Amino acid sequence: MAAAPSELAYVPFVSVENMMRLVHRIGIETMLTGIADYIEEDFRRWESFDKTPRVASHSAEGVIELMPTSDGDVYGFKYVNGHPKNTKSGLQTVTAFGLLANVHTGYPVLLSEMTLLTALRTAATSALVARYLAPRGSDTMAMIGNGAQSEFQALAMRALCGVTRLRLYDIDRKATDKLVANLSGLGFDLTACSSAEDAIEGAQIITTCTADKQYATILTDNMVGAGIHINAIGGDCPGKTELHRDILLRSDVFVEYPPQTRIEGEIQQMPEDFPVTEMWQVITGAAKGRRDARQVTLFDGVGFATEDFSALRFVRDKLESTGLCQQLDLLADPDDPRDLFGMLQRAKGNTA
Amino acid sequence: MAAAPSELAYVPFVSVENMMRLVHRIGIETMLTGIADYIEEDFRRWESFDKTPRVASHSAEGVIELMPTSDGDVYGFKYVNGHPKNTKSGLQTVTAFGLLANVHTGYPVLLSEMTLLTALRTAATSALVARYLAPRGSDTMAMIGNGAQSEFQALAMRALCGVTRLRLYDIDRKATDKLVANLSGLGFDLTACSSAEDAIEGAQIITTCTADKQYATILTDNMVGAGIHINAIGGDCPGKTELHRDILLRSDVFVEYPPQTRIEGEIQQMPEDFPVTEMWQVITGAAKGRRDARQVTLFDGVGFATEDFSALRFVRDKLESTGLCQQLDLLADPDDPRDLFGMLQRAKGNTA
Repeated sequence: MAAAPSELAYVPFVSVENMMRLVHRIGIETMLTGIADYIEEDFRRWESFDKTPRVASHSAEGVIELMPTSDGDVYGFKYVNGHPKNTKSGLQTVTAFGLLANVHTGYPVLLSEMTLLTALRTAATSALVARYLAPRGSDTMAMIGNGAQSEFQALAMRALCGVTRLRLYDIDRKATDKLVANLSGLGFDLTACSSAEDAIEGAQIITTCTADKQYATILTDNMVGAGIHINAIGGDCPGKTELHRDILLRSDVFVEYPPQTRIEGEIQQMPEDFPVTEMWQVITGAAKGRRDARQVTLFDGVGFATEDFSALRFVRDKLESTGLCQQLDLLADPDDPRDLFGMLQRAKGNTA
Repeated sequence: MAAAPSELAYVPFVSVENMMRLVHRIGIETMLTGIADYIEEDFRRWESFDKTPRVASHSAEGVIELMPTSDGDVYGFKYVNGHPKNTKSGLQTVTAFGLLANVHTGYPVLLSEMTLLTALRTAATSALVARYLAPRGSDTMAMIGNGAQSEFQALAMRALCGVTRLRLYDIDRKATDKLVANLSGLGFDLTACSSAEDAIEGAQIITTCTADKQYATILTDNMVGAGIHINAIGGDCPGKTELHRDILLRSDVFVEYPPQTRIEGEIQQMPEDFPVTEMWQVITGAAKGRRDARQVTLFDGVGFATEDFSALRFVRDKLESTGLCQQLDLLADPDDPRDLFGMLQRAKGNTA
């Protein structure tokens, strides 16, 4: 009897290599816009999702998280770590992979790398939110923190919101140099700045995306003028924030999923009843986004499971036309489902 | 620049094929004993583990669960589903895969199929527990429910406890026939029985392992005599039990992790303060196991994350000597960890 697994045993797997191929095949800005569309669509049907704050395992060096959700037909989860000191030993701060499964059978239908995909969906989410909240005609963004996420943020903000001028600052000048080198020739107007204060000059959008796992004050209240949209995506775990609390008091704060953001976001500095608006309500029209030109809007983005779910849906929907996946022998699938042992025994000659 | 990922990008992956090879290479009873040793070792250091009830996503048809744990150095989790109606469409009731990661970096170090490995670790746990709780000299086991788990239970009970006589019953006679066929020639004394009452005649150990997702009464109180050890492993989610509550009242009940068992196990029928003994305490000697020959001991086994962790540790420790894994391109690993985008761009020529 053949030991070769049946078709049911296989799960399509998107490696890093194939994810990079997919990005280049589709084009990165088209892909960012496509993922943003899926994220928006899933925000519109927010109430059909099972939602829970992520399941975090904290250690001295960082955190490992599982982020599950389900829309009743498809289940998804992401494994993701956050280890700020990793870069010192040549490792990524964040690595991730994710899975979609059929809710009705429990069988996985997609396994995918998500280090790249997380950068894409985080940028797509930020730009989608900015399209609802940033002042009309925003074309200049300050980027404070020029690490692994920054190019993706820049491209998504251009693709979705029309941002073309970038003012860049990082405490490590080498990070800014890397960002400038990577974005050169892609049609941005780039300015490397010598301080955060300098970077925010003339910007309608301020993106803060730093990696320290600690309370840091990247922006103080006197730095932020009227009519600004702040895209704060670096503070994303307990004990890690980027903004002075006075900014929060003066802003209208928008979040993904309050039970998670109150644990992980900038608003962990504030009382439990600090008022926030949920983005899905802004997107469906149930709540107001930007009210006027002088308002300071603040997206306290921590990344939510539905966004990963949306990004994985996007990738899955591209597999048939691109074939950019491998088939992974992940599931035991005996001919008779009750005969797992028989499958094992019959494989003996072929595999021993 | 080469698009080929660096060594850090790869995660060792054990496919179903390689797991079957590993079982045959080591020998199934030796592997069951080895896994039981790892499980026992991890029960002995119970207090060093981060423990949480599994994170379950329930639907009408079944459940999808994530089971994470960590010992402070190594993090592990399992994805597992339970869909009793799957067998009707030729699918497994339970499929699973799992992962180990380095707590200090968050980087995955092993991805493995766990459909087979879960059957092995569940059997190893049952037999380990029976070695502490079953009456001295037990050689006969009744098995009620002869599905995918049953052969593994039988072999583990022989390897660890010396059980050689099996009395088999399933509401579906075909399942019993399959079990008899699979175990024939392996040196057991096998009796196919016409009822659960018949099966338990003369047995010192009763294993209940049925798959219905509902309250069922596989064993009633009058069926269970003195001096029995019940290995109840089929009731493992809310709304699913196998034993009449009067049996629980008359037994000393042993569990893995009370917060999870009270949700999922047989004791979900009982008040929150129903007394139970934790197995890790029996194993360390902090609590008494079997007191006397007439006592009814009941292992209300639901499967806990540390057991998967132990089984994955066992597999990982065998990879160096056997080489039974593939290298999976799961993690993006740019030369400069902050330069994820640069890695993507440099891959363009090679991958587009």
